[in-house]
Amino acid sequence: MAIEALRWRGDALELLDQRLLPERTLYVTCRSAAEVAHAIRDMVVRGAPAIGCAAAFGVALDRGAEAAFDVLARSRPTAVNLFWALERMRQATDYATEAIAILEEDIAANRAIGAHGATLVPDGARIMTYCNTGALATAGYGTALGVVRGAIEQGKRVSVIACETRPYLQGARLTAWECIQEGIPCTLVSDKMSGHRRRRDEVDLVAVGADRIAANGDVANKVGTYPLALAAARAGVPFVVAAPESTVDADTPAGDAIEIEERDPSEVAAGPAYNPAFDVTPHDLVTAVVTERRTVRLSEGDTL
Amino acid sequence: MAIEALRWRGDALELLDQRLLPERTLYVTCRSAAEVAHAIRDMVVRGAPAIGCAAAFGVALDRGAEAAFDVLARSRPTAVNLFWALERMRQATDYATEAIAILEEDIAANRAIGAHGATLVPDGARIMTYCNTGALATAGYGTALGVVRGAIEQGKRVSVIACETRPYLQGARLTAWECIQEGIPCTLVSDKMSGHRRRRDEVDLVAVGADRIAANGDVANKVGTYPLALAAARAGVPFVVAAPESTVDADTPAGDAIEIEERDPSEVAAGPAYNPAFDVTPHDLVTAVVTERRTVRLSEGDTL
Repeated sequence: MAIEALRWRGDALELLDQRLLPERTLYVTCRSAAEVAHAIRDMVVRGAPAIGCAAAFGVALDRGAEAAFDVLARSRPTAVNLFWALERMRQATDYATEAIAILEEDIAANRAIGAHGATLVPDGARIMTYCNTGALATAGYGTALGVVRGAIEQGKRVSVIACETRPYLQGARLTAWECIQEGIPCTLVSDKMSGHRRRRDEVDLVAVGADRIAANGDVANKVGTYPLALAAARAGVPFVVAAPESTVDADTPAGDAIEIEERDPSEVAAGPAYNPAFDVTPHDLVTAVVTERRTVRLSEGDTL
Repeated sequence: MAIEALRWRGDALELLDQRLLPERTLYVTCRSAAEVAHAIRDMVVRGAPAIGCAAAFGVALDRGAEAAFDVLARSRPTAVNLFWALERMRQATDYATEAIAILEEDIAANRAIGAHGATLVPDGARIMTYCNTGALATAGYGTALGVVRGAIEQGKRVSVIACETRPYLQGARLTAWECIQEGIPCTLVSDKMSGHRRRRDEVDLVAVGADRIAANGDVANKVGTYPLALAAARAGVPFVVAAPESTVDADTPAGDAIEIEERDPSEVAAGPAYNPAFDVTPHDLVTAVVTERRTVRLSEGDTL
């Protein structure tokens, strides 16, 4: 069974409600851009590439109305794929065809990312992942989890160590579920022991996705990525960022300029709390950025 | 109101059930060493110094019976204060008097730690804490939170940034509650954004406790401490470990030799998971170890 986060029905976009997984597989039907924007904000659909695809279909549902662009642009601020997809839809004439093209290109990009990234993966590697970067986070196949799939397609024996990823537990609920669906060996670990585990030589590679990559290679991704990168650097474990070119934001010079979404404190605590959805990992902690076109290790002063 | 984690009643030890805080203030009555050991294992009482005190009273309840030492020694493996307290009780003749002495000495030690540690705290400092290191974790006053109290007693205006500390939420439930009780300004943050926050120059000092400090200065503490230390080092923020001398384990040369307790995976996940209670922070990431007797910055090759 192929896992589909989005299903286009011509007059509706069906979104797999990722908040209910793995217990329930239920699709939410969106018939307007406003409904798609609502689903993005509420995390029915999540993952930067999947959000971009959903937004494209949202524009198609409203036949390119200006209000559609507005409501979708305000749904979530950090994933640049959203704004990239909206920009592409602005140039389109046949909206549905363009949205379908964005979706299909994303799948193709993920397969290429997987093939490129897999060359960095040694046989037998234990690959630590964070959040969900698989088919659910994209139009299909996945970015960092696509690298795992690519390595397996290249005949390598690899296993996944999935960080649970508080507070939404995307690692526990989504990544572990995807791995089980496909028979990929997977161990779940709590977020906080991930550094401890790396210190004990139990991880060979860390592979994460991205919500936005600044021109200098700084990476905004799910909050908690930065501590993973620090621990990987200390342990000498390669830290690979896998994302399509649509995640690269050439207009943002460095990570400090990326808007970091702050979500409702009630997601993490009963009282006053600070709950950013993302953090920024400085480029010097990133071993390589893998896209569908290239594998880049940035030095100081380089740009993507 | 002074917060008391332990209350000695002559024929019983009353332990504040820290699993119920802050909603309920309920004391569990233990009348034997086995009941105390059970309470330690189930985290009715937690915090290395408080565990040591509880174990001492457990021996007193069984009047020094050999079985009391055995059952208490098997309750939790990492906090060395437990074994230190049992060793002291072995030399005692009047068990209750010795246990009371251990408790009173712990309070005095914490006050001295607070006074010493406070000299490292600049006026206006925003102090990040992890887990609970306050009165609840000790016989009273606290270790790292004792440093906060000491700074306030020295007339400094300081505030606390308390990491929530999954999965038991000791920061959210206990540290924030202690701060509220005493009017100490406190902001709660999710564990995962702690690194992000430090990068944004919002933390002046990180102060943590310890469950065991190896002779070379490596520190076993609540899992998640190591990533905090990595991020502090990267941000140039001092990272201070506050603990009584009874936490220093001269017999353990380095952190790798410390037994790390693995708790039930069901605490963090529904499926297979790895759930260590502690991690080890290498000594080079520790700016200073503060005890009741000394403030030490270890260099490579030194021993405590």
